Amino acid sequence: MSGLLAISSGDPAGIGPEIIGKSWQARKAEGLQPFFAIGDPRAFASVWDGPVTVIETPLDALSQFATALPILPVIDSGNVTPGAPDLDGARCALQALEMGVGLARAGTVRAIVTGPIAKIQLQKVGFNFPGQTEFIAEACGVDRQNVAMLLAGPGLRVVPITVHIGIAQVPAALSIELIVNRARAAAKGMARNFGIERPRLAIAGLNPHAGEQGSMGSEETEIIIPAIEILRAEGFDVAGPLPADTMFHAAARARYDVALCQYHDQALIPVKALHFDDAVNMTLGLPIVRTSPDHGTAFDIAGKNLASPSSMIAAIQMAGAAWQHRQTHEG
Amino acid sequence: MSGLLAISSGDPAGIGPEIIGKSWQARKAEGLQPFFAIGDPRAFASVWDGPVTVIETPLDALSQFATALPILPVIDSGNVTPGAPDLDGARCALQALEMGVGLARAGTVRAIVTGPIAKIQLQKVGFNFPGQTEFIAEACGVDRQNVAMLLAGPGLRVVPITVHIGIAQVPAALSIELIVNRARAAAKGMARNFGIERPRLAIAGLNPHAGEQGSMGSEETEIIIPAIEILRAEGFDVAGPLPADTMFHAAARARYDVALCQYHDQALIPVKALHFDDAVNMTLGLPIVRTSPDHGTAFDIAGKNLASPSSMIAAIQMAGAAWQHRQTHEG
Repeated sequence: MSGLLAISSGDPAGIGPEIIGKSWQARKAEGLQPFFAIGDPRAFASVWDGPVTVIETPLDALSQFATALPILPVIDSGNVTPGAPDLDGARCALQALEMGVGLARAGTVRAIVTGPIAKIQLQKVGFNFPGQTEFIAEACGVDRQNVAMLLAGPGLRVVPITVHIGIAQVPAALSIELIVNRARAAAKGMARNFGIERPRLAIAGLNPHAGEQGSMGSEETEIIIPAIEILRAEGFDVAGPLPADTMFHAAARARYDVALCQYHDQALIPVKALHFDDAVNMTLGLPIVRTSPDHGTAFDIAGKNLASPSSMIAAIQMAGAAWQHRQTHEG
Repeated sequence: MSGLLAISSGDPAGIGPEIIGKSWQARKAEGLQPFFAIGDPRAFASVWDGPVTVIETPLDALSQFATALPILPVIDSGNVTPGAPDLDGARCALQALEMGVGLARAGTVRAIVTGPIAKIQLQKVGFNFPGQTEFIAEACGVDRQNVAMLLAGPGLRVVPITVHIGIAQVPAALSIELIVNRARAAAKGMARNFGIERPRLAIAGLNPHAGEQGSMGSEETEIIIPAIEILRAEGFDVAGPLPADTMFHAAARARYDVALCQYHDQALIPVKALHFDDAVNMTLGLPIVRTSPDHGTAFDIAGKNLASPSSMIAAIQMAGAAWQHRQTHEG
């Protein structure tokens, strides 16, 4: 294990290359451990004028990191136009992701931090996953029901139980098994990646006021409460089902380490309202450490030197800290 | 018009009487205009040791307000046990609400501020409404589809389009007509009650990422976008459908005056995360001004002198300010 982190560039026409370059620039101020980018060096040069160095193997990054951003090259992404994604760029993004996951799986790097991708473009080049999280789960041989997508800011950590499906599909997608599996992944993830050995879980209700004793929906009594009872019988510290609207102010957040939410926006509204610039996406339940910034490709501002590296920097820091916690937890 | 505000006590076993008493105590520090409570004087005396004076008619409050909390009595609520609601208390709460609405309708008071009720108890004494909002709409002869429930804090105003229904019922409850009606009520309410003559409305999508071009739900394309087009044709300033998770951080909130959300938690999660202690509930679309604190009866802390009057004070202030804006707007 080299002490390095790998960062996949994401779509070369998005803001990934720019925020990776800006993160390298902030390496001293932010105390970042050594990393290298995986991507097309031309995509970096076209949007960022800092020093880059093309490396042949990951370990070369260790000696280069102090003076230039090391880049492990992948397939040429063609003529990159910031803000205009194309299929060459999608192939480049996919290869960077695959290579980064492989290096993390092999133990060559401590963690992979993934830059933002354009799902619609990737699907045109054969990527059949709802997002990078599910791709990485499969690449690691883990059932996607046993991983959990964590969004974490300084004051709030949330895990959506269902993710990228329409609201009308949410009630049928929820099951006792799914909630139990996500909660187990969340609890174990808190211990392994954050050093919280006995995490306090808070589980949201699905319906307003957590269903108000069944008067506004039966999912709490039929699915969520039975799942909570199983988790408690297994020894987990679980509160819920809580009314979602009253669980995210400061006093309420102090009562738990991670909130499990029933659907995408129930989790992402509060974390992005509170931590829009510095929330990090981490996948729990994997054998490797994987984080990413909590934002998309932002094609509308790509190439304009407007993108903030805050979330990418936080993702690099959280990946490094998670690796350290794992050494303590498992060592 | 007397210059007075009326405050209905809400359930006498809840925190209503205590926070009304505490608001009276803060009348000078907070610059509150004269008000009187409507309720059972015994319920106040049992949880608050400040001075009260029982008045015979609303106007008596004007001369009494400086030295004691004026209370216009209703039916005796029996032996009140804080935290233990009963049917006598529900009858008392209902009568207070009815009397307050009547006084506002008659122009005797400038506005009604409603204390928190216990819906389950009220329904046992014949109250057939989802909440006070719908009761007041009917009492004012306004179709409940043409009013809007506004939750407003210093940095965010939200209107849920559907309110107290389960998530599974939300997609079918949404219609072009409902969204248009709520948005009209919201826009007119901003002008009448807040003095914002050309309000900027932001309308959330229903699904994650506002459906991502139909890949996660069709409600945006079939219902929400057509509604927005109608509103724009009527001259309203409308943005949307916006992804709900990225519309509530500070920079995004600066772009609109009121956010319309498709369901209860989509609206209430952000406003309560940001403004748990000082958000106010206001009903838009009524001939009268009506506000209430943005919390429930809190039976678990009733009678313990633990309840914060912050939201009640904010509700009194917002009611007074709304009345002033209406004079300017309509005068």
